Amino acid sequence: MARYEIRLSGFGGQGLIFAAIVLAEAAGTHDGKYVCQTQSYGPEARGGASKAEVVISDEEIDYPKAIKPDLLLAMSQKSCDAYFFDLKPSGMLIVDSTFVKQLPTSRAIAIPFTRIAREKLGKELGANIIALGALAALSGAVSLSSLEAAVLSRVAEGAEEFNRKALELGIECAGDTLKMSAEVAEVEDYEDSSDQ
Amino acid sequence: MARYEIRLSGFGGQGLIFAAIVLAEAAGTHDGKYVCQTQSYGPEARGGASKAEVVISDEEIDYPKAIKPDLLLAMSQKSCDAYFFDLKPSGMLIVDSTFVKQLPTSRAIAIPFTRIAREKLGKELGANIIALGALAALSGAVSLSSLEAAVLSRVAEGAEEFNRKALELGIECAGDTLKMSAEVAEVEDYEDSSDQ
Repeated sequence: MARYEIRLSGFGGQGLIFAAIVLAEAAGTHDGKYVCQTQSYGPEARGGASKAEVVISDEEIDYPKAIKPDLLLAMSQKSCDAYFFDLKPSGMLIVDSTFVKQLPTSRAIAIPFTRIAREKLGKELGANIIALGALAALSGAVSLSSLEAAVLSRVAEGAEEFNRKALELGIECAGDTLKMSAEVAEVEDYEDSSDQ
Repeated sequence: MARYEIRLSGFGGQGLIFAAIVLAEAAGTHDGKYVCQTQSYGPEARGGASKAEVVISDEEIDYPKAIKPDLLLAMSQKSCDAYFFDLKPSGMLIVDSTFVKQLPTSRAIAIPFTRIAREKLGKELGANIIALGALAALSGAVSLSSLEAAVLSRVAEGAEEFNRKALELGIECAGDTLKMSAEVAEVEDYEDSSDQ
């Protein structure tokens, strides 16, 4: 992978800087890639939409910020609205459908991370880690084993099980998304063949 | 301040990424400056010396990484050796003298942050926050009130008092350093006047 740009966005308190650091350490320390991880403050935080970025590359990184993200995670409507237009045309948009109700494209992957955290983990706090699991599984930007190692090395003592479960939930969500598109694809194939 | 570059360096586990994020939030969110905060992984981490950077500016920031730091905090001998030569000639070097025994310049400000944390806070964990307090007081890069607000908004519930105390210790250290240089200056003045 020459250069892969990831932007994690949402509102303050969702743990997106933490998620970005974990992602960077998974790719850098565990997968052995070149990685830069940044956050910016100031007018760049468009209308309350906060972001943290990770640039991953097999080669040395000249410019450390995302220019045209390959992957955008939007965990709030505001951040989705603010950052969608920066996404590469072929890029992947993953949204937290707990908060993002208006999708800018039909290709968006919508998963209710925060609702899942609330219902399956008992608190919303784990939504960022669920999102990381889904993002890694869907994009392949980092290996799942590296991601798990990075998460576990960063979380507070005693919180390992909670975070491991959050990661698993995220990977499960990603699997469900793929199954859904496979079903859609099957239906489309069927329609295609009936046209012949 | 047109552009002020800070590099926090040491070994993994010293909480330097956390310190950099707090510093960035103090300058960005609370002081209203433009701020970029980065960390890089890969061969850039020279020989186990890890670093996190904060660039603060009154103007929009074009390049988000430190080019010639104005301030280097080195909390290990390795990071001091690796990064001292990047420092601006007029830059400020602050070292944790618990670990840095060989100073590359007589102008280094040496404070045993980790030893102070161990002796005054009962655990080494607070050394990064003590260092932040000293760094802010000595450099004026962020206001102390903003730094306190940023620290308290980022630490875990229940850890506020520990971290407030750590900050105060850092500011106290900075004061002692200044007093020392003032005493040296007085002695020098005295010698100067005796020469006349």
